[in-house]
Amino acid sequence: MTLRLADIVLSLAGEFDARLVGDPDTLIERLAPLESATGSELSFLSHPKYLGKLATSLAACVVVSPAAEEAARRRGTCIIVDDPYFYFARLTRLWKQRHPSAVGSEGPSRHPSAFIDPLAQLEADVMVGAFASIGARAVLAKGVSVGAHCVIGNDVRLGAETRLEARVTVADGCVLGQRCLVHPGAVIGADGFGFAPHAGRWEKIEQLGIVRIGDDVEIGANTCIDRGALQDTVIEDGVKLDNLVQIGHNVRIGQHSALAGCAGVAGSAVIGAHCTVGGGAVVLGHLNLADHVHISAASVVTRSIHLPGHYTGLFPIDDNARWEKNAATLKQLHVLRERLKALEQTSPQALAKSPKKS
Amino acid sequence: MTLRLADIVLSLAGEFDARLVGDPDTLIERLAPLESATGSELSFLSHPKYLGKLATSLAACVVVSPAAEEAARRRGTCIIVDDPYFYFARLTRLWKQRHPSAVGSEGPSRHPSAFIDPLAQLEADVMVGAFASIGARAVLAKGVSVGAHCVIGNDVRLGAETRLEARVTVADGCVLGQRCLVHPGAVIGADGFGFAPHAGRWEKIEQLGIVRIGDDVEIGANTCIDRGALQDTVIEDGVKLDNLVQIGHNVRIGQHSALAGCAGVAGSAVIGAHCTVGGGAVVLGHLNLADHVHISAASVVTRSIHLPGHYTGLFPIDDNARWEKNAATLKQLHVLRERLKALEQTSPQALAKSPKKS
Amino acid sequence: MTLRLADIVLSLAGEFDARLVGDPDTLIERLAPLESATGSELSFLSHPKYLGKLATSLAACVVVSPAAEEAARRRGTCIIVDDPYFYFARLTRLWKQRHPSAVGSEGPSRHPSAFIDPLAQLEADVMVGAFASIGARAVLAKGVSVGAHCVIGNDVRLGAETRLEARVTVADGCVLGQRCLVHPGAVIGADGFGFAPHAGRWEKIEQLGIVRIGDDVEIGANTCIDRGALQDTVIEDGVKLDNLVQIGHNVRIGQHSALAGCAGVAGSAVIGAHCTVGGGAVVLGHLNLADHVHISAASVVTRSIHLPGHYTGLFPIDDNARWEKNAATLKQLHVLRERLKALEQTSPQALAKSPKKS
Repeated sequence: MTLRLADIVLSLAGEFDARLVGDPDTLIERLAPLESATGSELSFLSHPKYLGKLATSLAACVVVSPAAEEAARRRGTCIIVDDPYFYFARLTRLWKQRHPSAVGSEGPSRHPSAFIDPLAQLEADVMVGAFASIGARAVLAKGVSVGAHCVIGNDVRLGAETRLEARVTVADGCVLGQRCLVHPGAVIGADGFGFAPHAGRWEKIEQLGIVRIGDDVEIGANTCIDRGALQDTVIEDGVKLDNLVQIGHNVRIGQHSALAGCAGVAGSAVIGAHCTVGGGAVVLGHLNLADHVHISAASVVTRSIHLPGHYTGLFPIDDNARWEKNAATLKQLHVLRERLKALEQTSPQALAKSPKKS
Repeated sequence: MTLRLADIVLSLAGEFDARLVGDPDTLIERLAPLESATGSELSFLSHPKYLGKLATSLAACVVVSPAAEEAARRRGTCIIVDDPYFYFARLTRLWKQRHPSAVGSEGPSRHPSAFIDPLAQLEADVMVGAFASIGARAVLAKGVSVGAHCVIGNDVRLGAETRLEARVTVADGCVLGQRCLVHPGAVIGADGFGFAPHAGRWEKIEQLGIVRIGDDVEIGANTCIDRGALQDTVIEDGVKLDNLVQIGHNVRIGQHSALAGCAGVAGSAVIGAHCTVGGGAVVLGHLNLADHVHISAASVVTRSIHLPGHYTGLFPIDDNARWEKNAATLKQLHVLRERLKALEQTSPQALAKSPKKS
Repeated sequence: MTLRLADIVLSLAGEFDARLVGDPDTLIERLAPLESATGSELSFLSHPKYLGKLATSLAACVVVSPAAEEAARRRGTCIIVDDPYFYFARLTRLWKQRHPSAVGSEGPSRHPSAFIDPLAQLEADVMVGAFASIGARAVLAKGVSVGAHCVIGNDVRLGAETRLEARVTVADGCVLGQRCLVHPGAVIGADGFGFAPHAGRWEKIEQLGIVRIGDDVEIGANTCIDRGALQDTVIEDGVKLDNLVQIGHNVRIGQHSALAGCAGVAGSAVIGAHCTVGGGAVVLGHLNLADHVHISAASVVTRSIHLPGHYTGLFPIDDNARWEKNAATLKQLHVLRERLKALEQTSPQALAKSPKKS
C-alpha cells in the first residue's frame, strides 16, 4: 500500500506530538531498517548508538528523537517525536491494518465447517475459523477471533477482542482476558507434571486448577502453560511469552514481564512484574523472583532472587580445544583453591598482602 | 462438589489403611495446600519439613503420616495414613472423576465430524473427538479416547484405556500400550534427524523404525518422540515425559523414568529405569545412563554414566557484573593452573604441604 | 518386503559404482545395524572405527568402503562402494518407497473433508489430507502434499514436490521452495517477538515480513520459524532443522546448515553456510556466524564468530557433590586470580618462571 507522509503523521496525531520536517506529499510504500531503506520507505532511529547510520540512509523519511533532530535535518525529510521506537511500533500497526493480505481478512465470520457446541455463548462479532471446535458453556466475548483448527474446551472464557491464531488449544475451564494474542500450536491448560512416587512407580496427581490469563497477554507458537494442581496458574496483564516457552503448574508471572523463546519456568515459581527472562533460561520450581529482575539468556535460576538487577550464569563459549582444557581444570577447581591456600600459608610475604582469605 | 469426610475415607478404603480422627460428617468441597486451605477444604502434610505449617492451617482436615499424628490431633480433624502424598494423589483422582467439568464428560462418543478409515478397528467404548482422523488398519482397544483434532496414522495401535487429548499426532505404525495419557500437540513418530553428508549436502536417511511405547506412559504437551532409523524408539512402562521434551530416534528410556520440561535426549541414547532428568537437561547421543541416575535441571550429559547417583553441570547464576569477571577468568583457567604449578615448584615449603599435584 | 541383493545393487547403479561380492540371489528383508543384523538383513560399515564389529556381524551382507574390503570379504558377502554411509542413505529411500505402509500411500488425493479456498491454485498431482485448510491465492505447485489438519494461509506458495506432514501451519504469505519436508506441528510464519517498551508496558511491533524457505529444506516437529519484522526470515537451500527448534524473526540461515533439536536462534542472527548447531544450543540475537562454524550442543553463542571452527561452552557434568564444591569456588574465581597474582609478586623465583601474566 502507499500512504502520504502527511496522512501517516495525521493518523497517529491522537497519540503522539510529532513534527514532520520535509515534503508532506512524500509517498511511502513500506517501513524498513535504516541501512536497507530505499526512497519509498520510512525508517527510524531507535537509539543514539545508530546515529552513524543516519547520514547514509536512503530512506524517504526517518523518525528520530529531538536529540537527533539536527543530524536528521541535514540528511533530509524526518519526523521528530519523543519516543521514535514506540512511534515505529504504532506505524507497524498502521501497516498491518491496511495491508491487503492481513491474516483472516477474507472468509466468512463463522466458517461453516466449525463445530460450536449448542451451549457455547458467542457474543457479537466473534469470528470462528475452519474446523475450529468450541466446547460447552464456553463464553467468547465481543470481537473474539478463533483461528482455524483451534480447540476450545468446555467452560473456557475468552475476553473481548482476544485473538487465537490457528491450531491453539485452550483446555477446559481456562480463562483469558481481553486483547490477548495467542500464536499457533500454543497449549493452554494441559495437565501439570505432578506425580507421587509410590513403590517405584509414579502415581498421577490429577491437576484440578486452571490457567488464568490477564489482559493484553501475547503467547508464542507452541508455547505451553500448564493448569494448576490445586490452585491456578496465573499470567498477569501485559505479559509476553515467546515461542516454545514452558510454564509449569501453579506458576505466577507478574504484570508486563517478558520471557524469550525456549525459556522454562518450573512448577510453583513466582516471577515478579516487569521482569525479563532470556531465551533458553530456566527458573527452577518454588522460587521467587522480585519485580524488575532480568535473567540473561540460557541462565539457570537455582535460588530465589530478592533484589532487582541483572543476573547471569552461563559458561562462556570458546574455541573447543581451549574449552576442553578449561573445563578439565574446572573439575578440579576446588583442589586448586586448596593448593593456593596452602601456598599462601607458607609464604609470609604473600600472606601479608593477600587481598582476601578463603 | 461436596463430599462427607467419612465417604472420602471409605472410597479409598480398598487401597489404604487410613484412620479418620474427628467428625466424619465434615463436608469437604475442595483439596487445597496447607497454607491456603479454608474450613471446607482438605489438605495434606507430605513431608516432615512442613510440620511448622500444620498448626496454623485452617483446613477442615489434614492427611498426615503416623509420625505427625500427635501434632495433627492437637490442630483438629485429621486422617492418619502411611503415605500421605500417595493418599493425596488418589484424592485428586477422586475429585477429577466427580468433577462436573471433567474433560470430555459431555459430547457424543464418536463425533460425527471425525474421519475414521473403513479399515480401522475400534473396539468397545472408544471415544473419538471432533475432526479427529484415524488411518487405515489402526487398532484402538477398549476404552481408548481420541481427542478432537488428533491424527492417528495407518497401522497405529493404541492399548486399552489409552487417552489422547486434543491435537495429538501418532504417525504410521507406532504403538502405545494401555492407560497412556498424551497431551495436546505431542508428536509421536515423526522422522528422526538422520542425514548422510555428501558433497556438502545432507542426504536424507529415511527413518524406517517406529515408536513403541509401553503401558502407563504420560507424554506432555508439544513433546516429540521420533521414530527409529532402522530399529525402534522405545519408551518403557510407566515413563513420564513433561512438555516440550525431545526424544531422538532409537532412544530407549527405561521403566518409570521421568523427564521434566524442555529436556532433550539425542539419538540412540539409552536411559535406564527409575532415572530422572531435570528440566532443560540434555543427554547427548549414543550414551548410556544406568538405572537410578538423576540429572539436575539444565545439565548436559556428555559421557555415559554407569553408577547410580546425582549428577550436575551448570554455571551458577550470579549478579551479572560478578559473572562477567568470573567468566573472563574462567577462559584462562588452564593458564592459572600452570601459574599455580610454577609457584609451587619454586616454593619448597608449599611443595611439601600441597594436598595434590596436577 | 524382500529384495534380491543383485536387484538392490542394480537399483542404485545409476548413482553408485558399487561391486557385489558373494551370492547375488541372497534375499534381503530389512536394513539393520551391524551388531543386531541377522541373516536376512543388510548392514553397513560407515566408519573405520567400527571395523571391530564387522567380523562378528551376522548380516546377510555388509556395505563397506574399499579400505575395508579385505576384512569384509573374510566375513562373507559384501558390497564395496566409495561412500558406504551415503549408499546406505539411498538404501533407506529404496525401502521407504517400497514399504507397504508408507505414509499417505492410501486415501484419496484430495480428501473430501479438506477446505480449499476457491481462489487457491493447485497444480497437478497435489494431495490434500483430511481437514486441511488452504487459504486464498495460495499456490501449490506440482506434486505438493499437504497432510491432514494442515493450515495453509492466504498467499502462501509451496514449491514442487514439497511435502507437509500432518498439522503443519504456514502463515499468510510465506514461501517454501521445492522438495521441502515439514514435520507435524511445525509453525512457519508466526509473529516474531517484537515489542517497544513504553511506560512500563510492551507495545507490539507488528511483524510485516514473511518467511522465505529455499529448496530441499527439512523442518522438524513442533519447530517454529517466525516471520520477519520488516524484512524476511530466510532459510536457504538444503538447511535441516530438527524438532522443537526456535528461529526468531529476521534470522538468515545459510545453505546446508543443520540445527539439532531444541536449538534456538534469536532475532536477526545470521548463520553462515555449512554450519552445525548442536542440540539445545542458543545463538543470541544480531550475531553473525561465518560459514563452516560448528557449535557444540547446549553451548551459548554470545558474540559473532568470524572464523570457521568448533566452538563449545558448557559446564562439565560431575557428581553433584563435586559440582557443588567447584561451583562454589567458581563464584570466587576472580578473587582466586587476584590471590595468585599477589603470591606471584612476592615470589621472585616464581615470577621469573611464570608462563604468562594476567
